Amino acid sequence: MSLNTLILNQGAERRLRAGHVWIYSNEVDNKRTPIKSFQLGEQVLVEASNGKSLGVAYVNPNTLICGRLLCRDTKLRLDRSLLVHRINIALSLREACFDKPCYRLVFGDSDGLPGLVIDRYFDIFVVQISTAGMEAVVDEIMSALNKIFTPQAIVLRCDGKMRTTEGLESYIEVAQGEVPELCPFEENGVPLLAPVLTGQKTGWFYDHRNNRAAMQKHVKGKRVLDLFSYVGGWGVQALAAGATEVMCVDASETALDVALENARLNNAEDRFVALQGDAFDACKELIQEQEKFDVVIVDPPAFIQRRKDIKNGERAYARINNLAMRLLDRNGVLVSASCSMHLERARLIDIIRANARELDRTAQIFDQGHQGADHPVHPAIPETDYLKSFCVRVLPSS
Amino acid sequence: MSLNTLILNQGAERRLRAGHVWIYSNEVDNKRTPIKSFQLGEQVLVEASNGKSLGVAYVNPNTLICGRLLCRDTKLRLDRSLLVHRINIALSLREACFDKPCYRLVFGDSDGLPGLVIDRYFDIFVVQISTAGMEAVVDEIMSALNKIFTPQAIVLRCDGKMRTTEGLESYIEVAQGEVPELCPFEENGVPLLAPVLTGQKTGWFYDHRNNRAAMQKHVKGKRVLDLFSYVGGWGVQALAAGATEVMCVDASETALDVALENARLNNAEDRFVALQGDAFDACKELIQEQEKFDVVIVDPPAFIQRRKDIKNGERAYARINNLAMRLLDRNGVLVSASCSMHLERARLIDIIRANARELDRTAQIFDQGHQGADHPVHPAIPETDYLKSFCVRVLPSS
Repeated sequence: MSLNTLILNQGAERRLRAGHVWIYSNEVDNKRTPIKSFQLGEQVLVEASNGKSLGVAYVNPNTLICGRLLCRDTKLRLDRSLLVHRINIALSLREACFDKPCYRLVFGDSDGLPGLVIDRYFDIFVVQISTAGMEAVVDEIMSALNKIFTPQAIVLRCDGKMRTTEGLESYIEVAQGEVPELCPFEENGVPLLAPVLTGQKTGWFYDHRNNRAAMQKHVKGKRVLDLFSYVGGWGVQALAAGATEVMCVDASETALDVALENARLNNAEDRFVALQGDAFDACKELIQEQEKFDVVIVDPPAFIQRRKDIKNGERAYARINNLAMRLLDRNGVLVSASCSMHLERARLIDIIRANARELDRTAQIFDQGHQGADHPVHPAIPETDYLKSFCVRVLPSS
Repeated sequence: MSLNTLILNQGAERRLRAGHVWIYSNEVDNKRTPIKSFQLGEQVLVEASNGKSLGVAYVNPNTLICGRLLCRDTKLRLDRSLLVHRINIALSLREACFDKPCYRLVFGDSDGLPGLVIDRYFDIFVVQISTAGMEAVVDEIMSALNKIFTPQAIVLRCDGKMRTTEGLESYIEVAQGEVPELCPFEENGVPLLAPVLTGQKTGWFYDHRNNRAAMQKHVKGKRVLDLFSYVGGWGVQALAAGATEVMCVDASETALDVALENARLNNAEDRFVALQGDAFDACKELIQEQEKFDVVIVDPPAFIQRRKDIKNGERAYARINNLAMRLLDRNGVLVSASCSMHLERARLIDIIRANARELDRTAQIFDQGHQGADHPVHPAIPETDYLKSFCVRVLPSS
């Protein structure tokens, strides 16, 4: 397959040379190679202004990030062969890190496959495609998965927000095999169920695996509150680790129903309490009722989606952490997490500091967590390093 | 015990109110309460300019940080009773986190005991005092330890650099009991020996516990290079986890002798190789000899001690990581750590990025580590959050 060439402005090759893989629309030499002349999702040869070749990318002529580098070797193409190769490399990392085949198999740019996420629940594969360039090879992705694995089913969860920007339709489709309403899988040795067709994103958030394992060490014999619980990722693992009671709070009744199923699967429904409602309101009520918990888990959805949301988002993180801290018993543990890439670790630590002082308590951060090994960080792309989690001991002041 | 009062300049109380515990000499109202009028290590009541009480601190009239807040309750004093209380609180965190009594029992400011570090090797306690205010209560510290524990021995390793600044003499003393040349202890289930009288700091660096555990998952059947090995903290734990060969490189012959003892203790001396010499030179030689390793561990001493060393220090980190990466086999794992508080996490990630590109390789950071739970972070004191460690997969470029 011979490709058209996309030429960059002078100097615009530097970031790519330094390891990044995104091309911005203002970096294209529009006189020589107008970006609008390319097809949606087309693969191109990328050249520096001086004619030096930089690699192969796919393009989207309509988006701010108009190109994503696929490889530096100009002989390669994004085809079944490259997909098989890259997925195998991604697989080898997961197999080195995890006992059971339940993980994010492919994490986009970090695994050299921009716009592609694949989550694996044993032999059920849930594929999320977010760019036109990756959508163009959806059949090759299916074929690659069938070459490497023996899938029980492949689900296309192509309904992410980014698709609208990319000019793609949203769809959810069982492309191969049959999928139960709730897919069985494991995390940290705990059997669980994920709603891969109807739940958030691909049905589960594998990224917090290590942080949930860290939490598990501190819940035995404890009363635990899990805010924004979704289907019980934290809460049910707290039950499995011996919590005497776990209260899951979520706005979604459906999510709480799945959380209950997950508690049942772990023979812990008698220690499980579901509270449907807004987490902020729920906290206020619990405070009013003078409820106390030994461990409170705060893992909200991304309050900061874009840079311009930073101020308001930080305020929301501060508020919910304050409410959570008020609900902690005398020697409680706060687990405070954020998946907002735009919230810096240091800012979340500062939010913890400020709340502890306001409530006249002493905070010690004794565990700092990140996303798990199935969400590797691309060292040139800070956006791939988004997750933070802290275990904080909140003592009386002295 | 009634105390003298130290009055702060207007506004200087804000940082303390916000949670910090250090008082700088330029924050003292020297007209009303000249800092030079206080005794070395004296305990004082701290007051804001408007007379509002802020708590109790100890002072050193000769240092930039001239006071450290001990408590916000003005009725308390740094005495045996407070030491027992604070050490018990510190102990409860360690007991919640670790199976065996081998850990940093007290981590200075983060445990509310500024200037005091206590490392525990089963029933041997190694005490490090770095300030005049803490030195003033050395007898009470001994007494507190005897109240809470039944120490086999207490060692005073009072030879840290900070003592000179504080105007204190250096000394190493077995203050109680008897201490073997090499103290037995455990880390991550691996039996080890530490030279608590003659080694660096208190004899061992417990802070990397979690990071060594993370490393252990990736060394089975692998050839491992441990740079700046000291007594084999990483290397011997790699042997225990099934590495086929571990080469420890250190400038100190004595440290390598202890590393060999540690390898022996784990029945692994036949898989252990010691290479005495400068790590930079050793790497260059190994590169020349075309040696390759599956895993290279880079855990240097702090190349950046003070802010003014940042530039040169970052260059040194870049150089050693570059050399390490050159020694990695085709699909190698780099473990890159830094204990320099002044080296930001993002900078070390960037050093990894730059070296990977220079060597035309692809890097994926799949584990990010911090100091363990026995080195809790004080959320108001960024200096207490100093350790970073990354597991990086270094693949051929594509």
